[in-house]
Amino acid sequence: SDGVNRSQDEIHLHSPLSMPNATGYLWNKKMMFQMTCRGFANALHMQPEPAKYAYGQSFEAKTFLQPEHHYYAGHPGRFFYIKLNNGSLFSLPYEPTRQKLDKFTFIQKQDALRWEVEKDNLRFLLEVKLAEDIALEDWRLELINLGDQDTYIDIYPCFSIGYASWMNQSARFIPQLNGVMAEYITPYQKAEDYPKIKASMDKTVLIADAPIESYDTSTPQFLGEGHMHCPDAIMQSTLFNSSALYETPIAVLQHKISVPASQKVKLSWLFGPCKNEAHAMQLKNRLSKHNTARPAHINSGISIETPDNTLNQMVNTWLPRQLSYHIESDRLTTDPQTRNFLQDHLSSIWLHPKLAKKNLLLALSQQNKNGAMPDGILLHKDAELKYINQVPHSDHNVWLFPFVELYLNETNDYSILAETLAFSDDKKPYSVEEHLERACEYLWSQRDHRNLSLIKQGDWCDPMNMVGIRGKGVSFWLSLASAYAMGIWAKILGTIQQHEKAQKWQDAQQTLNDACNDLGWDGNWYARGITDGDEKFGIAKDKEGQIFLNPQSWAILSGAASQDKTEKILTAVEAKLKTPYGYCMLAPAYTQMDERIGRVTQKFPGTAENGSIYNHAASFYAYALYTQEPARTLTKSKDIAYEVLASMLVSAHDCLKRGQLPNFIPNYFRGAYHQLPEAAGRSSHLFNTGTCAWFYRSIIEGLFGLQQHSGKLTLQPNLPSTWESASISKKIYNANVRINIKRGKQFTLSTDANNLNVKGNEVSGFVENQTYLITLVVPHD
Amino acid sequence: SDGVNRSQDEIHLHSPLSMPNATGYLWNKKMMFQMTCRGFANALHMQPEPAKYAYGQSFEAKTFLQPEHHYYAGHPGRFFYIKLNNGSLFSLPYEPTRQKLDKFTFIQKQDALRWEVEKDNLRFLLEVKLAEDIALEDWRLELINLGDQDTYIDIYPCFSIGYASWMNQSARFIPQLNGVMAEYITPYQKAEDYPKIKASMDKTVLIADAPIESYDTSTPQFLGEGHMHCPDAIMQSTLFNSSALYETPIAVLQHKISVPASQKVKLSWLFGPCKNEAHAMQLKNRLSKHNTARPAHINSGISIETPDNTLNQMVNTWLPRQLSYHIESDRLTTDPQTRNFLQDHLSSIWLHPKLAKKNLLLALSQQNKNGAMPDGILLHKDAELKYINQVPHSDHNVWLFPFVELYLNETNDYSILAETLAFSDDKKPYSVEEHLERACEYLWSQRDHRNLSLIKQGDWCDPMNMVGIRGKGVSFWLSLASAYAMGIWAKILGTIQQHEKAQKWQDAQQTLNDACNDLGWDGNWYARGITDGDEKFGIAKDKEGQIFLNPQSWAILSGAASQDKTEKILTAVEAKLKTPYGYCMLAPAYTQMDERIGRVTQKFPGTAENGSIYNHAASFYAYALYTQEPARTLTKSKDIAYEVLASMLVSAHDCLKRGQLPNFIPNYFRGAYHQLPEAAGRSSHLFNTGTCAWFYRSIIEGLFGLQQHSGKLTLQPNLPSTWESASISKKIYNANVRINIKRGKQFTLSTDANNLNVKGNEVSGFVENQTYLITLVVPHD
Repeated sequence: SDGVNRSQDEIHLHSPLSMPNATGYLWNKKMMFQMTCRGFANALHMQPEPAKYAYGQSFEAKTFLQPEHHYYAGHPGRFFYIKLNNGSLFSLPYEPTRQKLDKFTFIQKQDALRWEVEKDNLRFLLEVKLAEDIALEDWRLELINLGDQDTYIDIYPCFSIGYASWMNQSARFIPQLNGVMAEYITPYQKAEDYPKIKASMDKTVLIADAPIESYDTSTPQFLGEGHMHCPDAIMQSTLFNSSALYETPIAVLQHKISVPASQKVKLSWLFGPCKNEAHAMQLKNRLSKHNTARPAHINSGISIETPDNTLNQMVNTWLPRQLSYHIESDRLTTDPQTRNFLQDHLSSIWLHPKLAKKNLLLALSQQNKNGAMPDGILLHKDAELKYINQVPHSDHNVWLFPFVELYLNETNDYSILAETLAFSDDKKPYSVEEHLERACEYLWSQRDHRNLSLIKQGDWCDPMNMVGIRGKGVSFWLSLASAYAMGIWAKILGTIQQHEKAQKWQDAQQTLNDACNDLGWDGNWYARGITDGDEKFGIAKDKEGQIFLNPQSWAILSGAASQDKTEKILTAVEAKLKTPYGYCMLAPAYTQMDERIGRVTQKFPGTAENGSIYNHAASFYAYALYTQEPARTLTKSKDIAYEVLASMLVSAHDCLKRGQLPNFIPNYFRGAYHQLPEAAGRSSHLFNTGTCAWFYRSIIEGLFGLQQHSGKLTLQPNLPSTWESASISKKIYNANVRINIKRGKQFTLSTDANNLNVKGNEVSGFVENQTYLITLVVPHD
Repeated sequence: SDGVNRSQDEIHLHSPLSMPNATGYLWNKKMMFQMTCRGFANALHMQPEPAKYAYGQSFEAKTFLQPEHHYYAGHPGRFFYIKLNNGSLFSLPYEPTRQKLDKFTFIQKQDALRWEVEKDNLRFLLEVKLAEDIALEDWRLELINLGDQDTYIDIYPCFSIGYASWMNQSARFIPQLNGVMAEYITPYQKAEDYPKIKASMDKTVLIADAPIESYDTSTPQFLGEGHMHCPDAIMQSTLFNSSALYETPIAVLQHKISVPASQKVKLSWLFGPCKNEAHAMQLKNRLSKHNTARPAHINSGISIETPDNTLNQMVNTWLPRQLSYHIESDRLTTDPQTRNFLQDHLSSIWLHPKLAKKNLLLALSQQNKNGAMPDGILLHKDAELKYINQVPHSDHNVWLFPFVELYLNETNDYSILAETLAFSDDKKPYSVEEHLERACEYLWSQRDHRNLSLIKQGDWCDPMNMVGIRGKGVSFWLSLASAYAMGIWAKILGTIQQHEKAQKWQDAQQTLNDACNDLGWDGNWYARGITDGDEKFGIAKDKEGQIFLNPQSWAILSGAASQDKTEKILTAVEAKLKTPYGYCMLAPAYTQMDERIGRVTQKFPGTAENGSIYNHAASFYAYALYTQEPARTLTKSKDIAYEVLASMLVSAHDCLKRGQLPNFIPNYFRGAYHQLPEAAGRSSHLFNTGTCAWFYRSIIEGLFGLQQHSGKLTLQPNLPSTWESASISKKIYNANVRINIKRGKQFTLSTDANNLNVKGNEVSGFVENQTYLITLVVPHD
């Protein structure tokens, strides 16, 4: 056994050793909180820029959330030293003493992380939730004496605060708070940064409900000659009651607890950022509150039953949770990349269509009147484009179209096209239709003499930054993605009876597709691009970066790939990109800088965009295979598409190798399977990813084949060949529809409702809030 | 005893526990290397921007060298695990196992750091030097078996490499190198940063001379479930031979050594940054070389003998070393602040006058034609103004004048004034004299209607950034410093017979001094400034920041302070600013932001500019008391000035409280003695400081009273009242002069040389390379 139990509600891990970096996560609208099973923590809160309230021991760089976060002894965490009257010392959850526990379970719940630990006839039920509305951790410990002797215990919550500032940092115990407050001045040098500094919550508090026997707030004094596994202060009968005077702060408290035989005791703590002492005192009132960030289960209106239980759990519980995290947090940024913003909020269309509409309008309000979308969408007035958003990318316009397509199909709300709003550089209001038309025109304008799309300093692949840095290089992927976008727009224009314009964009789509077929087809797959120096890459004669997944997926999506080409693509992808842990984004991974291509080739082989199993890319592939003719009608497509999706899910047989719990889909697993097999399959543990929405979409529109359009539902399921049945429940035009699919001799579609119109595989006439059962019989291929 | 032995040559510390953060340092022109007695290390090398080759475990922020660096378990270090065949495990120097050693001595030598350790009948002599010309650590271990049994030992050098990059980091063992190479790509996102990245030495090597039994290069694999004090790998018979594949690198080797009874064995390692594998192989050749960065002793041409042995050692050995570090490293920056550059290179005037001249011309070549000096001096073509140099400060011009004064006095090379060079914004050549005239004019132009100098966003006190942010606030210190600068310039102009101009600057000096006396005198001391809002501060009615040291020192230097005022100043400074650990820069320290004053009030009370014993400021005070009438002639001045200087030196009675060895003068000791007595006196451990040159100057021109001018030497010694004799040897106009001073009834000056002209306390006629003995008898006051 892998020591993991999974269910719709909870995931249990029974050892702190088998997957030391396995994490759970919580969030609310103000913060994100991720913790390893062993007790290390990463937390960010928005004020409005992302900030920490607990740091490491050295002065850390500000950076975006990184994959494969490195945990180390001394990493910030939430620890509880336990000292028994028999002299035994251990810690919860497991770090930092690393003492063997009699029982250990780490639980990812919907709204909590929980540990159930037993040691020396004591049971510890430790749980953390987040407050609903503010950045605050709510910790509860229930301690049960399983023995027949009264027990006296010292409990020392020990919460890292760390090195926050070289300007000013300190911490002290505040008796009336019954806790510790650390204070720091975010370091700065320019006067113009002062207003931001002034507004920031640069204090961290740990507040207890139980009486405090002693405390420490100075890291060096607390540790003395000891290490974190046996600090000098813990070895004494009481802590040193130290203040941190320009020393690295820590919050450690001592509670002396007696637990009568067979009785239990409950303790609570709050931990989080605060503004000042008065604010801290307000927080203290929440000790007695029921703090919880969200309902126990996120209802997306969609649930499935299939023979694949891992898939069921992911789609019914963990994925909606991850979708919801993306929608609510915007990845803890104030300037999400336009590409991410539009894809993350695909999920809003299912979960919260009004929010989806609002966000589409927000994005379009930042569009330039020449049609170009900016690199990032600014979410508040002081937000600025940061990090990668200061590098010009060429693909942002593409993502408007799948968004609008899904929005219209799901809501049938074509009135949105008539809404009016200004451009960022033109105050006059224009219709959404005009915004989208210009977005398409902009894509069309950004092509070269060969009718291929200019890549500039990167497309979907951010770090592919030197292919077109001199202004000449082109991207086959972007050309195909532009064609796909134009195809969508043509379809929408057709629906609203703008046939002339529709034809124009169909022609444009064809022009781009033709150019890609003429210049991009390498014999067995599509090339990735042509460099400034007019060298084609992503082709068979390349030693590294020989084949990229994205051009294949999007040649299918755009309609460029004929049946013959599609079959060759499927064969090549299986041969070159498939690994036991999923489908790589390119292979072989680059092992050195290729200055024709750029920064992507400098990333470590098999990580991130350099040939990992980059799930976002893999989800495009599955979606393409499921939904686009002629790929969909190839018999093997269904099984491959399912395999692509299934291999993103951590399962019992590869859990340990991936090192991750099945509570989210990470942005990648290590690729480079043939080059560095020892690392292949490892999870990035980063749950920020464009994968989620496309995975969800692939299940709904692809595997179950529910295609909505203009009030109609078309049913075109693509069950894997081994499945005999499956069912899905989904809101369809606000009706509650359940669809049962079974294998049979020939296709039949029946329903329990008289008022539905059924025509072939097409159903219409859904009435809001009504409940429908549709039964589908589908033959094996 | 404090466990410290001091001598001219070496400083010995006999415990790793008494002063855990005590450090020694080495440098060459490419790097700086600082290590604690226990084995933690900080190293920076220039390529040409400062870079690290060993990092902590989290992704560290790039920042300038900070005071009170925080060392923690897991901090980068150079460690040697020792495993004996009796199973005992300990480590050298002391971290990370922290096992008790039988004997421990940490030695700061001139050109090496050394440890002499005994444990279990084994003696370990461990030493590190730097290569002379490149960034490279040369480690040697001599192991002596003191017993009568042959011994078998496992030695594991364990050198931190740490978290260098989220883009790409790895490490591997290279057999032909007999060592480990770690590789990383400095993380970046913008294509324009690539050329810098490409040129940088982003590899780190550890190379051994002895055979390697096994190795580890992956931190998580090396540690396993162990901590740094007992890594899993060390607990095995051999290491895991791990490669770091996008994991945090470390370099650990296992050597199996046998040492026959009473015999010794020697081992060597090299550690440092490198470019590539070929470069690493070149470095390997240095294993057999005698790598050493400098001669055993830096000869400044100056030495003293006084009753104060701590002072003798500092002035004769450790201070020239620190001066030399400043001259050669420019504080590991490529854009030293103009203020620092001109004061650090005061030392070049004594140690290397040609370099001093070159640097003055370099600084003046970056002057604006309006006379303004820039905020930093760029040392190479790609250097940029960074950090604090992006904030406009008002004092940079001041520092030209003490520099030129000392240069002319020491060298008598007035020809420099006729050298010509361009301004940064005017290609036409102008004489140095014209540059300096315009520098003075610029200072004169930057005053308000009250004849007080505008402070802008800070003067000498960098973080005093809000006093004049609206363009109105003024600085009494800067007004006085400008007056002092003009006074110097007037004297120089007088010397070169430019009497009219000289008179103009004397008048200007008087105007500024008068304005300060009219508006700045607060009754018992001078105020610090007047804010934009027209509020005077640094005055008796202020609760915090009531008195600042600098305006007092510079009112004496500028000649503003009458005898009456000077006496009041001395009394106030003794009462308000003196502490057992030295003289604070202001008191009481600010405990909260004062938005009238700015960032200085946000620093932690008693640290840095917020009321620490900021030695740079204290050295101005000593220099003022020693050299300027009427202060000098006040009886108590001599003893106070000596006290000010002596209290900067770590001595036997306060070593433990300061936590520092007497091998350098730090930039500060904690002040706020009355507010936070528990922390007062702690060293910043930062040896970058403008103090050194002014301390040296105070000893030479002040305590010994050697005033050089136009080929003459005036002798005006200011021995502390308790001293009966003292002597100094110094190059005077390139002659070797020794001056013996004794107490006697009345002043007499005699010499062994016939060819010297003696007139009162004035001597002239020195001939280059001749040796002279001058004997001085001075009465008690």
